[in-house]
Amino acid sequence: MATMDAISVIRTKRDRGELSDQQIDWVIDAYTRGEVADEQMSSLAMAILLNGMNRREIARWTAAMIASGERMDFSSLSRPTADKHSTGGVGDKITLPLAPLVAACGAAVPQLSGRGLGHTGGTLDKLESIPGWRALLSNEEMLNVLDTTGAVICAAGDGLAPADKKLYALRDVTGTVEAIPLIASSIMSKKIAEGTGSLVLDVKVGTGAFMKTIEDARELASTMVGLGTDHGVKTVALLTDMSTPLGLTAGNALEVRESVEVLAGGGPADVVELTIALAREMLDAAGVRAADPAKALADGSAMDVWRRMIAAQGGDPDAVLPVAKEQHVIKAPSSGVLTRLDAYGIGVAAWRLGAGRARKEDPVQAGAGIELHAKPGDTVTAGQPLLTLHTDTPERFEYALQAVEGSYDIGAAGTEFTASPVVLERIA
Amino acid sequence: MATMDAISVIRTKRDRGELSDQQIDWVIDAYTRGEVADEQMSSLAMAILLNGMNRREIARWTAAMIASGERMDFSSLSRPTADKHSTGGVGDKITLPLAPLVAACGAAVPQLSGRGLGHTGGTLDKLESIPGWRALLSNEEMLNVLDTTGAVICAAGDGLAPADKKLYALRDVTGTVEAIPLIASSIMSKKIAEGTGSLVLDVKVGTGAFMKTIEDARELASTMVGLGTDHGVKTVALLTDMSTPLGLTAGNALEVRESVEVLAGGGPADVVELTIALAREMLDAAGVRAADPAKALADGSAMDVWRRMIAAQGGDPDAVLPVAKEQHVIKAPSSGVLTRLDAYGIGVAAWRLGAGRARKEDPVQAGAGIELHAKPGDTVTAGQPLLTLHTDTPERFEYALQAVEGSYDIGAAGTEFTASPVVLERIA
Repeated sequence: MATMDAISVIRTKRDRGELSDQQIDWVIDAYTRGEVADEQMSSLAMAILLNGMNRREIARWTAAMIASGERMDFSSLSRPTADKHSTGGVGDKITLPLAPLVAACGAAVPQLSGRGLGHTGGTLDKLESIPGWRALLSNEEMLNVLDTTGAVICAAGDGLAPADKKLYALRDVTGTVEAIPLIASSIMSKKIAEGTGSLVLDVKVGTGAFMKTIEDARELASTMVGLGTDHGVKTVALLTDMSTPLGLTAGNALEVRESVEVLAGGGPADVVELTIALAREMLDAAGVRAADPAKALADGSAMDVWRRMIAAQGGDPDAVLPVAKEQHVIKAPSSGVLTRLDAYGIGVAAWRLGAGRARKEDPVQAGAGIELHAKPGDTVTAGQPLLTLHTDTPERFEYALQAVEGSYDIGAAGTEFTASPVVLERIA
Repeated sequence: MATMDAISVIRTKRDRGELSDQQIDWVIDAYTRGEVADEQMSSLAMAILLNGMNRREIARWTAAMIASGERMDFSSLSRPTADKHSTGGVGDKITLPLAPLVAACGAAVPQLSGRGLGHTGGTLDKLESIPGWRALLSNEEMLNVLDTTGAVICAAGDGLAPADKKLYALRDVTGTVEAIPLIASSIMSKKIAEGTGSLVLDVKVGTGAFMKTIEDARELASTMVGLGTDHGVKTVALLTDMSTPLGLTAGNALEVRESVEVLAGGGPADVVELTIALAREMLDAAGVRAADPAKALADGSAMDVWRRMIAAQGGDPDAVLPVAKEQHVIKAPSSGVLTRLDAYGIGVAAWRLGAGRARKEDPVQAGAGIELHAKPGDTVTAGQPLLTLHTDTPERFEYALQAVEGSYDIGAAGTEFTASPVVLERIA
């Protein structure tokens, strides 16, 4: 008889017990090897979601996922490394201007990114709207781009935390995504295995985020900061607002265009503010205190890194970006103040227009998405454009419009409106 | 896009919501068809185990499992049908004398039975120790045996509640067996689809049963009685003691031998008492009130039905039953009163000796098991045989002895002992 078996591990958590170090090590290893079946891991994941894990269990679970694969090493680089991770939001293109900005200020930024699933966009999907750009690099290519340009944004290799890759795909189809212990260990196992020296977490809060409340976001953030610190990674988290989309665009090429505006010294105020705040945290964490991110945006040095980074991965920074074949304009039904523009509704609509995917194997449309012509707090006039919907497949408009419906409110002229701050809290 | 999907059903139950009739019908049908994957059903099963289902949900879940397959019909029989189901225990051979006894008293007994898994034995495994006896009958063969002898004990066909067959196997490997809504719907969907007119449930309570407390047993019993009644099956439940093994044997051929003793008018008092109590309930439920089960045991008429029933399924009722190759006797370490003999410990030990199986595809040993030489309340003398362990594979003795250790207590001579009643409660 085996000294360890899946059912006894499941039962322990099901009956509100603590998993031992041995149980955690065994179940992660056996799942990676295929000895523990998907249907066993999914019932364990549901038991974890409903009954929780304590700090020790989460730390061991994370360590076991790191141990399931290889670890990268950036110690050969001449500069300190800093990485950022966002828990995902609508219009969250921050990685695009941020990585070259931080590199321009003197740190190295190895940014392993993902694709979008559900209503939140994916950084790789966005960059792939640039003709020629390649997400998939070998470890050598990645180190080379990082060394020569200071920043690299690419897909994580298959060797990094394979247990997490398998579990992430499983959670996605079994209703077990929204478990703080599993979210925290998934993010941190990849980031620790990646080998960054410091890490800044952008934990989104609000309707468009996985964490709907500040309490949940705080718990997730402090769990991840603890995990990073325990593994020798200097880790800081900002809780940031995701009740309304970031910037004025949601969609792949649309967001690249807005990111380039920011790198050119312009762009929407909230995107610029968050980019600079995160850059400041990354540079502090990496020990590069003298740099001035606002200046690096204004003087074109961040744009220079962007152009070199895109070119180093086969992309043409001067190429014309794809534009969707069809547009549909939603006009303001009345005059007054836009008091609400819901991130979730806009995210779902952009997804339905073709910017996102329902299943991992689906393609995305480079030009699809939504342009915002006003943000909460802005005065609007009846009949002015409020949103422009973009898609190559106009039969999607109706389904997208259903998601937009009820996602915004216009108050009478003079309605008082207090905007949420971009950065809500800092946890270190 | 599908109007229904597995993740939304899982999320509803995960977030403590009620599943709608449409959700339940869809998920059971889609799971049977393979559209809902095993890993999705197992996370749903864990959510049901931890968050429960209300009466309406359980009723609909049961109806959907019945609807997944064919239904049998015994209306062509000249006699009323009565069936019994036990939730499973150690030494629970009651079906063997009971079915022919009730048939001898005038009802027809279509007893679709299962195999043992874990520490509880299976009726089919026991009968298969009789040389030649076949568990697998076609529907026609089954009806023919039932019609000519009055009783049939056989395996359920593949067409009956296929959703339950699939879900039962899944629950067994995913730590989701112990959920009252799933246990109740599993048992009742099979029994209702089988088409019996009345049903008596033997709900076991105690260390050797799935239900460890009287409260859990009551909840399971009243849930099942409600389900049966709603589907027009006259249903009654007895809660019966499973803190110590039933009778003096646990194991396949060992239990057949004891059952034949009962049919011959002898046998252990607790087995006789429970057999007659259940027979009385079955006959009442079937409307056969004049019959006297005690008399049918004493006058040999139950034994006659047994012999005809075994022969009709290819078995030789006069054959010598298999005996295990090796025996090991455990002697009483002191003199006094046996105050405890734990059903779970004895059940696990019998299983380890080869009477049961760890996985569905494992074979069982016909001769393996345990003989009890004393029952709780009996006076014992130091050095007298307490238990005899039987197996064909003596290397199993040590592992079985570990399970027996700590499973019995001997009090000083004169220690007061009050035996638990065999039948604890009746729920109708």
